[in-house]
Amino acid sequence: MADKFAIGVDYGTNSVRALVVNTATGDEIGTAVYDYPSGDAGILLDPRDPNVARQNPADYIDGFIDSVKKAVEQAKATAGFSPEAVVGIGVDTTGSTPIPVDADGVALACKDEFKGNPAAHAWLWKDHTSYAEAEEISRKARERGEPYLAKCGGVYSSEWYWSKITHCMRTAPEVAAAAASWVELADFVPAYVTGNPAPDKLARCICAAGHKALYHESWDGLPSAEFLEAVEPGLSRFRYTTKAVPSDHKAGDLTADIAAKVGLPAGVPVAVGAFDAHHGAVGAGAGDGTLVKIMGTSTCDCLPSPLENALPDIPGLCGIVPESILPGYYGLEAGQSAVGDIFNWFVKRLTPASYGEGGDAHVRLTEEAAKLRPGATGLVALDWNNGNRTILVDPLLTGLLIGQTLHTTAAEVYRALVEATAFGALTIIKRVEEYGVSVKEVVNCGGIAEKNAFVMQVYADVCNRPMKVSRSAQTCALGAAIFGAVVGGAHASAVDAQKAMTGVKEKVYTPIPENAAVYAELYEVYRTLHDAFGTKEWTGSLHHVMKDLIAIRERARKR
Amino acid sequence: MADKFAIGVDYGTNSVRALVVNTATGDEIGTAVYDYPSGDAGILLDPRDPNVARQNPADYIDGFIDSVKKAVEQAKATAGFSPEAVVGIGVDTTGSTPIPVDADGVALACKDEFKGNPAAHAWLWKDHTSYAEAEEISRKARERGEPYLAKCGGVYSSEWYWSKITHCMRTAPEVAAAAASWVELADFVPAYVTGNPAPDKLARCICAAGHKALYHESWDGLPSAEFLEAVEPGLSRFRYTTKAVPSDHKAGDLTADIAAKVGLPAGVPVAVGAFDAHHGAVGAGAGDGTLVKIMGTSTCDCLPSPLENALPDIPGLCGIVPESILPGYYGLEAGQSAVGDIFNWFVKRLTPASYGEGGDAHVRLTEEAAKLRPGATGLVALDWNNGNRTILVDPLLTGLLIGQTLHTTAAEVYRALVEATAFGALTIIKRVEEYGVSVKEVVNCGGIAEKNAFVMQVYADVCNRPMKVSRSAQTCALGAAIFGAVVGGAHASAVDAQKAMTGVKEKVYTPIPENAAVYAELYEVYRTLHDAFGTKEWTGSLHHVMKDLIAIRERARKR
Repeated sequence: MADKFAIGVDYGTNSVRALVVNTATGDEIGTAVYDYPSGDAGILLDPRDPNVARQNPADYIDGFIDSVKKAVEQAKATAGFSPEAVVGIGVDTTGSTPIPVDADGVALACKDEFKGNPAAHAWLWKDHTSYAEAEEISRKARERGEPYLAKCGGVYSSEWYWSKITHCMRTAPEVAAAAASWVELADFVPAYVTGNPAPDKLARCICAAGHKALYHESWDGLPSAEFLEAVEPGLSRFRYTTKAVPSDHKAGDLTADIAAKVGLPAGVPVAVGAFDAHHGAVGAGAGDGTLVKIMGTSTCDCLPSPLENALPDIPGLCGIVPESILPGYYGLEAGQSAVGDIFNWFVKRLTPASYGEGGDAHVRLTEEAAKLRPGATGLVALDWNNGNRTILVDPLLTGLLIGQTLHTTAAEVYRALVEATAFGALTIIKRVEEYGVSVKEVVNCGGIAEKNAFVMQVYADVCNRPMKVSRSAQTCALGAAIFGAVVGGAHASAVDAQKAMTGVKEKVYTPIPENAAVYAELYEVYRTLHDAFGTKEWTGSLHHVMKDLIAIRERARKR
Repeated sequence: MADKFAIGVDYGTNSVRALVVNTATGDEIGTAVYDYPSGDAGILLDPRDPNVARQNPADYIDGFIDSVKKAVEQAKATAGFSPEAVVGIGVDTTGSTPIPVDADGVALACKDEFKGNPAAHAWLWKDHTSYAEAEEISRKARERGEPYLAKCGGVYSSEWYWSKITHCMRTAPEVAAAAASWVELADFVPAYVTGNPAPDKLARCICAAGHKALYHESWDGLPSAEFLEAVEPGLSRFRYTTKAVPSDHKAGDLTADIAAKVGLPAGVPVAVGAFDAHHGAVGAGAGDGTLVKIMGTSTCDCLPSPLENALPDIPGLCGIVPESILPGYYGLEAGQSAVGDIFNWFVKRLTPASYGEGGDAHVRLTEEAAKLRPGATGLVALDWNNGNRTILVDPLLTGLLIGQTLHTTAAEVYRALVEATAFGALTIIKRVEEYGVSVKEVVNCGGIAEKNAFVMQVYADVCNRPMKVSRSAQTCALGAAIFGAVVGGAHASAVDAQKAMTGVKEKVYTPIPENAAVYAELYEVYRTLHDAFGTKEWTGSLHHVMKDLIAIRERARKR
């Protein structure tokens, strides 16, 4: 039987990657990356407002063509591959990254009159300009007794669809008026490449709809027009007009025009999109009780749980959405707003020349930090430089570092920041388990899991659980390819495709008991700070915090 | 009438300076600095214990000879000066910096058998190894209802005489056994150069005795032998055997040997010593209601208050000691454990290459930080990297930085650290005024006041008071010279000598009202963190702190 292949296209924060995969073996035989050319590493910033993060939709289109074309070209070196053997394409993206479009589905930013208008561009997931609107949506839903927040942790986020659209209506009304609809990046790309971009016809994915737009079957899809009008008159115009579906559905077939540009036959089926984390979880082999952590600039934590077991609402979780990860399973989504971004910030902004520059500094800091014993820094940090997604769902939180002396080194601070993100990861696991969802296994993927043994060991020690790493270095793109394989008929279901196409590496990071014991103490300090600064309910004296840290430091140094 | 001259010798943390001054005009006509050659910039550290900070007593002796000799040499270029016109010498030093000595007054560290023993060296003021002993002394004094803590803020410090000796007895008993006594550096130098080093005869200064050794007339000088034995058996052996006196008393006359080495006639009178801050206050013109801030690696704040006005005990003040600054006045002493040390730490440890290196980085950081509006960083820090002296008297406190985002720059953190030290300064002023001592004027001196207009403006804005700067750049050495002039008979009293020899610069830093208004808000945040982390009494929610900072930041950026 001839080999069949699927292509996954993965849109990250700074670049897009295409991956050609053998549907029978998971072998990855062609890949290419396209760096978004616009702005600062693909992000349009505003020096006056650190909350702004936009992207140019043209980068997405150019990136599809360039990356798929080059990946296909590379795949040709492998015997058995031909463009005609590609059975399907899947797409995953960052999100919530909504894009205002006209009635034909053309991104407003691609039209001359809006080219210079930041509000007409894609509102990247980490744009936090709409924090006031998010609070207002949460407050009004609560006041009106609406059920909508129950599935997204009780708090609506500034990163999400309705907050961003409302903020645009209030601050850039000319953009809102010109928009026929707003389309998530995860829907924009499949719609564009299959020639179905018109918003009244395009396929909307359940993943973005459920996790970011308050879509749920139990309340007739989206929130009522009445509620949306109460948030902002005119907002209800941006309700979807089509039903949201999971990624084993087809968005359409590759147009002849795009097919010619990327070197594939016309008519290749393209799956409905999803977020990178969700497809990443699938590409990492996520199943019942297997938590997958996609570790990059931020993390997304995905945990499928069988539809037949009813789940409680879990406060602070970004969403519990049927079939958002795997068809047949609830998709539980959590996440940390910044992980790699915090490390990169520290290396760029606060690392002295003695550690070298850029990549060198990362390596040297890691080497020096790895030599330190848990607790010996006397430092604890909160990993909130970009707010807190899970479990506090609060973008108006900021970083904190405590315990500095006149001897504190950059490597010590770096270690404290790594540990802080691990404590944040543990806080998510604890929250899910408190509500009865067992985490039987943790599989990590993404750049950090792939490359940084130091970080992974800290995570194993802090979480006191083995940390596995996905076999594929490109789980998001692989997950997308899995759905390409499913819509292309190479496998009957995503679970079947996972069995053939995914796996974990031999190397497992195992907790070191004495480290885990120190981290259990430090987690108490972290949790005290977390609750003190992050929750309204907390009361108590913090007088002991610095002293606890000093005592832990002294014990660590004497060990 | 022929010109008369006095010499002040000022022992700092890293070096000693000699200054030759005209007693009629205050003109400074010769100066020289000697950098301590031992250890790391004169400090003996222990890489395993950040609390250790010792010095080599030989550096003090070599430093006296070298700096005085060179200053006298330089003075010869001025018409009217001759070594014979030098009427007296004064000395000031860091403290509490006690040195174990034998029965002849020889520093143990200068004897072969103890050369390699860190405990036999000088225990520099910022050595915090004896924090447990300090707590024990405070606790036992409280339990026994002793009056001793009333004049030192209610808490005994790890930086002080009895804590350090007790710690030495417990951890280096061979040193304690060999010590006939412990002599403060401020007494060690005058005793050595006048040939009166034997501990049963030397002049002890009221300044060190009163502020650091619990010496007070109302309880028969030092704490009772019974109390000291209750702290540690044998400790009472280190009570002084001589009465403590102020610096208008003579310690002795320069020996022929030392005189020859420094190029002066034998027999020049040498005043009883004092701490650098106290003499600095005198050299800056401190009088009734004039607070003098000596701003260096740490700060010391000195405020004379007339003996005829009875003063309450003021919690957290390092000491209220009759005549420790000026004869005829109470000397109120407060201080911040680290100021310049925090800036230096940040420049050395956490400033990226883009700001340049060493001194350049200081300049560039200052330039960039000065461009920022108050509040615009969104950051607040606690200035506790070296513990907190006033008003918490707690060495077991550490630094804190809150408000970081992924955009926070080194210049922003630097500004937050400068502001934190200014908030610490304001906390001291507020405490003194709460207890009825009016601060009518603030005069700053020391390296930071002299050189750093940015820091001084932040202090003016934060404290919402004019910040004056001493005319002399060497107020500590000038203050020492003033007492040299008094014991040499050039002036009848220190106050008379001040009138002739001191003054302030024309440039006064005046508060900018809109900055002061923002800092009034930020001080509330600082004070919340200060009380939450620094006091046992505090209870409450800190949930609002990061949000308050973000709101202040947003307003600052929009101004």
